[in-house]
Amino acid sequence: MADVLAPTSTEQLRRTNTALVLRSLRFEGPATRSELARRTGLAKATVGVIVSGLDLAGVVSEGVQDEPVGRGRPGRPVALREDALVGLGLELNVDYVSLVLLDLTGEVRRHEHRPRATPDGIADVLDLVRAVMQEYGAARVAGAMVAVPGLVRGDDVTLAWAPNLAVDGPALVAALEAELACPVTITNDANAAAYAESRHGAAVGVLHAVYLTGTVGIGAGVMVDGRPLRGAEGFAGEVGHMPVGDSTAPCGCGRRGCWEASIGLRAMLARVGLPELDTPVSSAEAVAARAAEPEVAAGLESVGRDLGRGLATIAHLLNPAVVVLGGYFVPLGEWLLGPAREALAERLPAEVGYPELRLSGLGIEAAAAGAAELALDDVFSGGVALG
Amino acid sequence: MADVLAPTSTEQLRRTNTALVLRSLRFEGPATRSELARRTGLAKATVGVIVSGLDLAGVVSEGVQDEPVGRGRPGRPVALREDALVGLGLELNVDYVSLVLLDLTGEVRRHEHRPRATPDGIADVLDLVRAVMQEYGAARVAGAMVAVPGLVRGDDVTLAWAPNLAVDGPALVAALEAELACPVTITNDANAAAYAESRHGAAVGVLHAVYLTGTVGIGAGVMVDGRPLRGAEGFAGEVGHMPVGDSTAPCGCGRRGCWEASIGLRAMLARVGLPELDTPVSSAEAVAARAAEPEVAAGLESVGRDLGRGLATIAHLLNPAVVVLGGYFVPLGEWLLGPAREALAERLPAEVGYPELRLSGLGIEAAAAGAAELALDDVFSGGVALG
Repeated sequence: MADVLAPTSTEQLRRTNTALVLRSLRFEGPATRSELARRTGLAKATVGVIVSGLDLAGVVSEGVQDEPVGRGRPGRPVALREDALVGLGLELNVDYVSLVLLDLTGEVRRHEHRPRATPDGIADVLDLVRAVMQEYGAARVAGAMVAVPGLVRGDDVTLAWAPNLAVDGPALVAALEAELACPVTITNDANAAAYAESRHGAAVGVLHAVYLTGTVGIGAGVMVDGRPLRGAEGFAGEVGHMPVGDSTAPCGCGRRGCWEASIGLRAMLARVGLPELDTPVSSAEAVAARAAEPEVAAGLESVGRDLGRGLATIAHLLNPAVVVLGGYFVPLGEWLLGPAREALAERLPAEVGYPELRLSGLGIEAAAAGAAELALDDVFSGGVALG
Repeated sequence: MADVLAPTSTEQLRRTNTALVLRSLRFEGPATRSELARRTGLAKATVGVIVSGLDLAGVVSEGVQDEPVGRGRPGRPVALREDALVGLGLELNVDYVSLVLLDLTGEVRRHEHRPRATPDGIADVLDLVRAVMQEYGAARVAGAMVAVPGLVRGDDVTLAWAPNLAVDGPALVAALEAELACPVTITNDANAAAYAESRHGAAVGVLHAVYLTGTVGIGAGVMVDGRPLRGAEGFAGEVGHMPVGDSTAPCGCGRRGCWEASIGLRAMLARVGLPELDTPVSSAEAVAARAAEPEVAAGLESVGRDLGRGLATIAHLLNPAVVVLGGYFVPLGEWLLGPAREALAERLPAEVGYPELRLSGLGIEAAAAGAAELALDDVFSGGVALG
């Protein structure tokens, strides 16, 4: 097929084949051009053109020549230059911003976490990106994704609904694209974190899992049969506004009785009688330090029970095998999990059993890590031009 | 591959090929053996053996010889003998039993609906089956499936949890298999009804849909991306026991505050102050006849609002495009839908919108119809020996 007649198809084919080579290098390790041809099923000449292009672009390196084996030109191992290209994951949350830089091998090269200082958070995100990129230097960002506690419609960058945020999605994306000169997209924080947990975290290998954010807002990322549950418009998992817990508690959305008005970070702090600090984790650690005090203990007990009651509803509807708890739930798991399991058991029949509750091992950066993974997936699926 | 070495594989291959031919006859209509070979990609000789077997078994008929066309033996059209083989769908619910006979073309040949008279319902099911089969005569049942308001674990016929029923699953299956001499399985009523709605009913073509039963118990069948949502153990959609509505109302499960304790058939009747009659539909029709009376109207209004509140939770979690309401909701839709939509709108942000509420057109037999479809699917997927 001639380029002139079908430029798009040829370009797409080149990307697809490049992605095949990159995926093989990432998941199966370094290999000679011949081995890459065998692994990918591509012609040796095609692999040669791709590897040369990736080499010129600085994305791969070809090692020293191996000992000659048999006849023909001996192969030199091709390897990913790990930090030549990175995926940038960001999270803009109500009270903090996070950043994760992931290299092409899937290793975390940097993670940063800061309290927010500006009303819409755009300047906070840009400051964090500039600081890290300046220090990190040579890194070339293949793509960036921002996780936010809000509803994102399909591929749109406009936030359909984010009652706890006051940010203009398109303005955020435009600012980041100007700074980074790479494609930037927006995704829901819980979906990004669920993706990270199912790839590297507490839900690896679990087909039916739910990730629950524990920040000012409460959101769920749902994996069904190993795939993210999006729903008709991409809005599934908006559990923070289920009516669970105190029906009089006012919520950021303007309603009363939402689950996050009982167990969101600020609700939890009010119930234990302690102030909000810089970030969910620092606030939660301060609570943990005083968890033996009666008022704090009683508050945590009742937050844990409301957590379990909402999880019972999620379990009745979705029947997940595992629920991963993130955000502030992690440092306070010791005090919350017991009451949560009790409340779950009260609302779910023993014959059915209830989902296993696990704490996130990815910490507060889970959403940013998932966003970085998703940004890199675009490279590996051939959605980003290289070379 | 010799039969002696791999009898199972050969038998499986025969079934798979037979299913290919049956599916083609059902969905593409009558065809000559040559046309069937072309449609299915099977060898003409293979099609010949299959068609002869199906003919002997009385499942297909070969028509009169067509006019000769060109050279070779002219073809005779092969057609499904519509009622030679039927799928039997049953529903055993708290207060009624239903039956649907579906022929191989997907047409409903019979549907019956009776109040229950015995404590465990097995005799009611058998009586209904005997009466219909006696009258229906020649029909040969390929497979039967019983829909029940309870949780069924995977392929098990033991009910994992059915608080509103007192039936022994294996005993029910054994009694039906002895009567029918065909395989019998059990499935959840809401899942069966959701399947029927997505195949022939109010949710055709809707990828993200929820079907809500309206009987003594309230259950949901959930379609995600066009596939049934089962969850880790097959227990997804058990929405009747979400804590929604009156937190003091006692439920059949022994807990308080379950959704079905506020909007299940008996709860609805108590709230409008009218007695339970033979079946959900007759009870609901009696309510409809008196819907203008103030107490009845007020009761329906508050049931409708509790319906909407629970649907809001379902919508937050699953983001379906359509919710299909079945059972007693259908005759009372005129009075329930308005308050339900109001309560939904109060709990869901306008930016997100809320799912379209539709009434089932399949009526109280939706679950039995879905069960019959599922029983026939076993034939069409090659899971039932023929000929």
